[in-house]
Amino acid sequence: MKQIHFTTETELNSILDASDAAYKIFSRLNVDIRASFLEEIAAQMLLIQTAITETASQETNLPLQRIESEFIRTIHQLKSYAANCRLGLWMDVRIDTKDSEPGTTLNDLRKTYLGLGTVAVFGASNFPLAYSTAGGDTACAFAAGCAVIVKAHSAHLQTGLLVSEAIEKAVDLFGLPKGLYAQVIGKGNEIGEQLVMHPKVKAVGFTGSYSGGMALHRLAMNRKEPIPVFAEMGSVNPVYLFEGFLSKHTDLVAGWYADSITASMGQFCTNPGILVGIKSTWLDLLIEKLSAKIDKVSPQLMLHQGIADAFRTKRNALINTNGVRLMTTDIETDHSLKAIPSLASVDAKLFIENRALHEEVFGPLSLVVVCENYEEMTLVANIIEGQLTATIIADEDELSQHPAIEEAIKDKCGRLIFNGVPTGVQVSFAQNHGGPFPATTDSRFSAVGADGIKRFSRPVTYQNYPEALLPPELQNSNPLKIMRTVNNKMTRDSI
Amino acid sequence: MKQIHFTTETELNSILDASDAAYKIFSRLNVDIRASFLEEIAAQMLLIQTAITETASQETNLPLQRIESEFIRTIHQLKSYAANCRLGLWMDVRIDTKDSEPGTTLNDLRKTYLGLGTVAVFGASNFPLAYSTAGGDTACAFAAGCAVIVKAHSAHLQTGLLVSEAIEKAVDLFGLPKGLYAQVIGKGNEIGEQLVMHPKVKAVGFTGSYSGGMALHRLAMNRKEPIPVFAEMGSVNPVYLFEGFLSKHTDLVAGWYADSITASMGQFCTNPGILVGIKSTWLDLLIEKLSAKIDKVSPQLMLHQGIADAFRTKRNALINTNGVRLMTTDIETDHSLKAIPSLASVDAKLFIENRALHEEVFGPLSLVVVCENYEEMTLVANIIEGQLTATIIADEDELSQHPAIEEAIKDKCGRLIFNGVPTGVQVSFAQNHGGPFPATTDSRFSAVGADGIKRFSRPVTYQNYPEALLPPELQNSNPLKIMRTVNNKMTRDSI
Repeated sequence: MKQIHFTTETELNSILDASDAAYKIFSRLNVDIRASFLEEIAAQMLLIQTAITETASQETNLPLQRIESEFIRTIHQLKSYAANCRLGLWMDVRIDTKDSEPGTTLNDLRKTYLGLGTVAVFGASNFPLAYSTAGGDTACAFAAGCAVIVKAHSAHLQTGLLVSEAIEKAVDLFGLPKGLYAQVIGKGNEIGEQLVMHPKVKAVGFTGSYSGGMALHRLAMNRKEPIPVFAEMGSVNPVYLFEGFLSKHTDLVAGWYADSITASMGQFCTNPGILVGIKSTWLDLLIEKLSAKIDKVSPQLMLHQGIADAFRTKRNALINTNGVRLMTTDIETDHSLKAIPSLASVDAKLFIENRALHEEVFGPLSLVVVCENYEEMTLVANIIEGQLTATIIADEDELSQHPAIEEAIKDKCGRLIFNGVPTGVQVSFAQNHGGPFPATTDSRFSAVGADGIKRFSRPVTYQNYPEALLPPELQNSNPLKIMRTVNNKMTRDSI
Repeated sequence: MKQIHFTTETELNSILDASDAAYKIFSRLNVDIRASFLEEIAAQMLLIQTAITETASQETNLPLQRIESEFIRTIHQLKSYAANCRLGLWMDVRIDTKDSEPGTTLNDLRKTYLGLGTVAVFGASNFPLAYSTAGGDTACAFAAGCAVIVKAHSAHLQTGLLVSEAIEKAVDLFGLPKGLYAQVIGKGNEIGEQLVMHPKVKAVGFTGSYSGGMALHRLAMNRKEPIPVFAEMGSVNPVYLFEGFLSKHTDLVAGWYADSITASMGQFCTNPGILVGIKSTWLDLLIEKLSAKIDKVSPQLMLHQGIADAFRTKRNALINTNGVRLMTTDIETDHSLKAIPSLASVDAKLFIENRALHEEVFGPLSLVVVCENYEEMTLVANIIEGQLTATIIADEDELSQHPAIEEAIKDKCGRLIFNGVPTGVQVSFAQNHGGPFPATTDSRFSAVGADGIKRFSRPVTYQNYPEALLPPELQNSNPLKIMRTVNNKMTRDSI
């Protein structure tokens, strides 16, 4: 166990002076160096893998196996951001040479991206590795050329300290300024608020609750200098069940969703919290099979007391709502940290009227919304707020017969899944982990995938600038050999 | 003269119902159709070119010749956004096929961009065409697949009505829903505020003053559902004069800047408001020549009374500031709408201490900041706030001898110009018209160039989606023949 030191406001000021100075050096290093640095963080984490995974498992109550796969994912993320940083597509390099379009291009313009400055990262309780200290936000910020200050999550402080050590070793090994990375620790919310309000912080990455994300967003927006906040605040990830597919594959769907709802005690931001179906024997059968499977999942410890208490309160409020039917067995748990995996159902009419039923219950619970017909399903799809994901379970031809539902669903989500489950966020180039408010504070960005780097960088155009003083990605010879748009054509060629 | 009708709140509600419905149809049309629609707006404007340019010139006091070139620029912008909309690079299409990276890509993911919804556009007084009704923001919003509501600028209502007619004709000719475009008119700020607060408005584009932009930004951020605001709020566009180049080209630089400071009575957001030089005979000579040239420019009418009054007040405050020296002749004007082209100077020590001197004086005025040496110039570059542009006037080798100044300048601007003037914003792919706060409310975006479209669109990823139901840009056959990133490689090939 490492000693916990709470950061004072004076310390915070010197941390930010150092990070600002470090940013000025780091942001000018080329993408190859930044990429290698990310790979070094991964290497340093691998050296202390067992310590990290055991500590994280102890701190979060998540099974070691689950943490081990998250560790592998985190290493993959770091390497993937490194590869993409080097590939350079995120910089969208554009070059318009003088007179390439006579009468229009009177100047030579060259555009690249520059890191915003110091980024404050607030990690998630449910992903102590992949969305925390050296998680996606930190990797994106470093790839963009930013300095990073992580606000340690109180639910996994020891894990955070171990991972911070790995980052600090990488900083040392690369001879980078120590200020490039720091972690701050506070007893309550105060240190996080001071961080977001600090004039030297230029952007915020957050993963967590709606109330936490919005509190930071409002602070940041009402600063004298507003700064961008990307807050991923979870969602209910609605699943729309069409009759044709369901009637043929009830077992399959029940199996998919029993796992998806209860895996890691439902503590995923992409957990399917609402299943929308059409009143039918098939839906009854699905509910029956799903309830039976969920009943077989024994209550397990949740991440921490706050989350366990919130789940209990929200679950109880839900199942005691007039018109809501609990479909699983209402057992007692033997521990206040344990959650009861649950399935409930409600008629769409009631769901549409009662906004409280649309809210996320973070944990192993789904609400089946029973619609009279597809018109009612369209109403539900239209009334539901912005989501990280939405899922359509359907035969292809029946989906194409209901374009209004498909359109309504599409307008509300960042990722649209066909015949699958929303849990399991693949880390690859085409991924989008974002979505319309209130899923995130800015639907134009993603927390996963190479474009996540864009959250923390801004375009700069050089006009008629001397070749020798241009950053390498803009030089005629294209020394980084990246793909560039030169006079509206994509090419790796030199100019 | 067309009759002016002030939009009521009830009318605003029905306008927004219609625009929301129109968005749902328009956003699903493919980029070819959206591009052709933009071209049709240009064609419709060309049919009434004389009426538009004469009206705009009368309403803004800008010379007809200046308005005519702005008209041509506006047509070029519409065509350029159409071309870029069709080219499709702004959609950053990414496709990761299943098993392209075994163990990682377990799903087929395909990412494209979707318009945000209805965009509210607030045009600028100084660009009644290029940054107004059918200006860059409107073109970007349509290209993204959004509906547009323009808040008419009270300084050029008749121009706005004429251009609106052209847009409405294009809407009709394309058989698009009428709600796709509307203009609202109000006596004060109220209608604009109602627009920004309306739940069916999903983004805001603004070009104008700091106070106007920040008022809308704060409203939008404190909505129940915050929405993105891109406000371009102008800047002082500092120019850094290095001794070597200046000593050899004093005449040339004086000529460039006399024009750049006084063209259109300095009413450009990229007007060079601050010139930073090193105390020397060369700088004295530049000031002398520049003052003589500026003195020869006769006072002309400004855009409207509010802008003329603000210029007079701010100019007087500046030249009456202790330590500020007026270098041009302090003449009287014969009309309260006329501005006196002016040059003043101040020592850097005083400039650094007095923040009021850093503020934009919108009009034909520049302040020369006289530094003792390059260290003081570095201090000035570090203390200046975020800017749309910064300009370096230097020999290449002397610039490379002062990396600290160059770095400080780079961190504060969206466009960095070498040996030129900041006025004249080339409309091409590599352009960036944006910059760190307070130049804009979000430095990650640009108001000019194809990436401007990104302000009003968001990524959506389709997971394992049926081929036939994918938008065309994501289909295997690549029917739009756009460049896509397939399994981390850029290609136009089909899959």
